Amino acid sequence: MAAQCPSREVLKHMTSRWGVLVLIALQNGTHRFGELRRLIGGVSERMLAQTLQWLESDGLVDRVAFHVVPPHVEYSLTPLGQEAAEKVSALADWIEIRLPSILEAKREKI
Amino acid sequence: MAAQCPSREVLKHMTSRWGVLVLIALQNGTHRFGELRRLIGGVSERMLAQTLQWLESDGLVDRVAFHVVPPHVEYSLTPLGQEAAEKVSALADWIEIRLPSILEAKREKI
Repeated sequence: MAAQCPSREVLKHMTSRWGVLVLIALQNGTHRFGELRRLIGGVSERMLAQTLQWLESDGLVDRVAFHVVPPHVEYSLTPLGQEAAEKVSALADWIEIRLPSILEAKREKI
Repeated sequence: MAAQCPSREVLKHMTSRWGVLVLIALQNGTHRFGELRRLIGGVSERMLAQTLQWLESDGLVDRVAFHVVPPHVEYSLTPLGQEAAEKVSALADWIEIRLPSILEAKREKI
């Protein structure tokens, strides 16, 4: 939990607002930038690009640019990214399953 | 992944920069505000208060105020929060274990 630990930065990227959703979206396979943007509701072009860059620099996402006309870029998970996506999915699945209890807790607080 | 899904807000809280670390810190038991601040390196008073409020409103954290002099407040995980903390810990443990591979991937990118 030390502020200087490099794991904190990786944790920040993986659990960033869009990092979680990008990892989950790429679990089903390779996607182009535009596809990812459509899959992930509400993400801006800038934030998606930033998130993909973070995950790429952490070795979780592979970026392959095809030099064709029009040019296109494909994103996929590395083996390390697959592992990361599994952990993040387990967390998201838990939220999905427990959402009724969470929403009930919220109502009781109001 | 829909932008309007209420699970997205819970995901945001649980995986927020400090949410992850608060859940992990409370896994070992009840803590007072000041203890949490010392345990979690780098968190500001304001951000810790905000994070605890989020987690409390999601039903993950219990807040008990003792009306003594000087007054004090204790935070602990609810049963739902325990489950959440386990998922988040699994993710953090994975990062800890895989950090050497992640750092190696980072070096290769430079």
